Amino acid sequence: MTTNFQFSVLAEDGSARRGSITMPRGEVRTPAFMPVGTGGTVKAMYMDQVRALGADIILGNTYHLMLRPGAERMARLGGLHEFARWPHPILTDSGGFQVMSLAGLRKITEQGVTFQSHVDGSRHEMSPERSIEIQGLLGSDIQMQLDECVRLPADESAIESSMEMSLRWAERCKEAFGDQPGKAMFGIVQGGDIQHLRERSALALKDMDLKGYAIGGLAVGEPQDVMLDMLDITCPLLPQHRPRYLMGVGTPDDILKSVARGIDMFDCVMPTRAGRHGLAYTRRGKVNLRNARHAEDTRPLDERSDCPAARDYSRAYLHHLVRSNEALGGMLLTWNNLAYYQYLMQGIRDAIEAGRYTEFMTQTQAEWERGDLDPV
Amino acid sequence: MTTNFQFSVLAEDGSARRGSITMPRGEVRTPAFMPVGTGGTVKAMYMDQVRALGADIILGNTYHLMLRPGAERMARLGGLHEFARWPHPILTDSGGFQVMSLAGLRKITEQGVTFQSHVDGSRHEMSPERSIEIQGLLGSDIQMQLDECVRLPADESAIESSMEMSLRWAERCKEAFGDQPGKAMFGIVQGGDIQHLRERSALALKDMDLKGYAIGGLAVGEPQDVMLDMLDITCPLLPQHRPRYLMGVGTPDDILKSVARGIDMFDCVMPTRAGRHGLAYTRRGKVNLRNARHAEDTRPLDERSDCPAARDYSRAYLHHLVRSNEALGGMLLTWNNLAYYQYLMQGIRDAIEAGRYTEFMTQTQAEWERGDLDPV
Repeated sequence: MTTNFQFSVLAEDGSARRGSITMPRGEVRTPAFMPVGTGGTVKAMYMDQVRALGADIILGNTYHLMLRPGAERMARLGGLHEFARWPHPILTDSGGFQVMSLAGLRKITEQGVTFQSHVDGSRHEMSPERSIEIQGLLGSDIQMQLDECVRLPADESAIESSMEMSLRWAERCKEAFGDQPGKAMFGIVQGGDIQHLRERSALALKDMDLKGYAIGGLAVGEPQDVMLDMLDITCPLLPQHRPRYLMGVGTPDDILKSVARGIDMFDCVMPTRAGRHGLAYTRRGKVNLRNARHAEDTRPLDERSDCPAARDYSRAYLHHLVRSNEALGGMLLTWNNLAYYQYLMQGIRDAIEAGRYTEFMTQTQAEWERGDLDPV
Repeated sequence: MTTNFQFSVLAEDGSARRGSITMPRGEVRTPAFMPVGTGGTVKAMYMDQVRALGADIILGNTYHLMLRPGAERMARLGGLHEFARWPHPILTDSGGFQVMSLAGLRKITEQGVTFQSHVDGSRHEMSPERSIEIQGLLGSDIQMQLDECVRLPADESAIESSMEMSLRWAERCKEAFGDQPGKAMFGIVQGGDIQHLRERSALALKDMDLKGYAIGGLAVGEPQDVMLDMLDITCPLLPQHRPRYLMGVGTPDDILKSVARGIDMFDCVMPTRAGRHGLAYTRRGKVNLRNARHAEDTRPLDERSDCPAARDYSRAYLHHLVRSNEALGGMLLTWNNLAYYQYLMQGIRDAIEAGRYTEFMTQTQAEWERGDLDPV
């Protein structure tokens, strides 16, 4: 096993890349989807199930974990891998995004951010240096710089000054992270929906020669074509031999189209959150199990799936569980959804290797378009 | 495989019995604990986990299932075994107990009970005949007579007239059930906490020559010694070669002491419900994972357990999950608790076979008394 963090592009098809990140805790096959393990658990899943679906890496949320169980406590407990029984690679966000969206009484200065915990109201400070320190205490393999993500719509001047501060924070995070050969710290491209700000951010980060690059501040409510435009602008400016991670994205269709533009890594709460709300992602598109059409349908969600949740349980049973708010409903649909996402990623990787990514996209989208099975 | 419902006592130790119920869907080794699968799911568990723990039979709640998904719908879907993916034996209650505790606008007459669904307010009628019909539509292997369970404390005259009506309902249920060689309908001994009423109920039911006998109306808040007194009175009056089922019981200690008095079958929501509330049943007694003493304890709940939930996860992690209201907390603790209950039942069965049940009780209680591990 390697002692270094390394990324190789193994195959290309247009701008789509099939790659491999290797690091001491294992390999991440890209394009990769990272299930979100917010507070040390991928909600309603056992970690062995997550692994068995083909996930090489999961995401942990620094904000949640620093509040509960706490970063220093986590370090005393042996780190997040040990704590959550996931010995494979882990990426952590910086905590910044959730400070902005969840915490109370936020105050942001050049130095960093102070905020109040949404759990118990306690006061916390997070600087770029402290974010990296916390991610280190968690034991994260891929760490993110602290950045500021402005809510859109916003004035260009507000987006710009925030982006510039994020660049200065990237330098400070790089310095704080130092030299850790088996791990990586990624910078985050910001700049809202403004082309020249995205360009400025990407080029400045490129100059810092980081081990990987995230694209942040997208998939926050803007139309899909705005997001894709920003990728069209940003990806070509990023170094070819570094992984590119589109944060918080997205729907299966977002993923297909972002891979086509050169994105290598994704994370999103959609498959897990939707699963807890009765929604299934399938080859045939999104299926709402709450709908009465499923009440007497003994067919499974997808008879061709390898996932027991998709293959072995009747829609009638899933419908019943969802309508009755039974825990097993969320367990099975989360399982199904993460299985579908990993199945999609495997299909994407195979198609790029085979040089038929465009065809794969078209076929996959056509299958979604045909829609779900006719009612019984 | 047998085509008949049969019960054999394989070994006796004092009044404790080691037995076997055989029926077309499989064998139930007694004394048996039946996990409660209220609405077609043992909450927060996959059925294969339940099975792997050693459960031979689960319980389904007629009240919940008749309201959702509905008895006729369940029959169209192939019955509860197929619906919930549990091909092994299932016992259903009559629905009566939950009509009394959950439904609205109840009206009880000699004919039966009318009530309003707690789910959607719809009106329903349940007679003894309809209860058996519903249990048949669900596909239940062991069905319960409809009875009336009076809330204690109550006047003797109220307890008596209710018990007498339950006897008449037992006759009607027996008639409605008819001749089904592979299945069974059990009568239910009532009579509150009054010795001569329990005797009258047991003897009258014995005269009906039913395939099994339940004892109802206990573990409803009375002190344990009252319950045990009622068992001391009732069990000797019941036929030796029929299974005896103590409904809704109980704690591990209740089970130990009831087995000593000749009980063969149990069901209880405690292990599943407690699991969802952060409580673990272990060899060392009850452990509250919410307690701060576990926050940095890397030891598992029980290093000697075969159950991954008990053996492989740190108390610190379980504490974190419980405190954070994560679904996985309830999943793991329910798993642990059902594992402990099945482990206890296996120990009970082995001890009776070996003729050392009294010693087993003493040792088991002493281990509970010693209590949990010292804090780290």
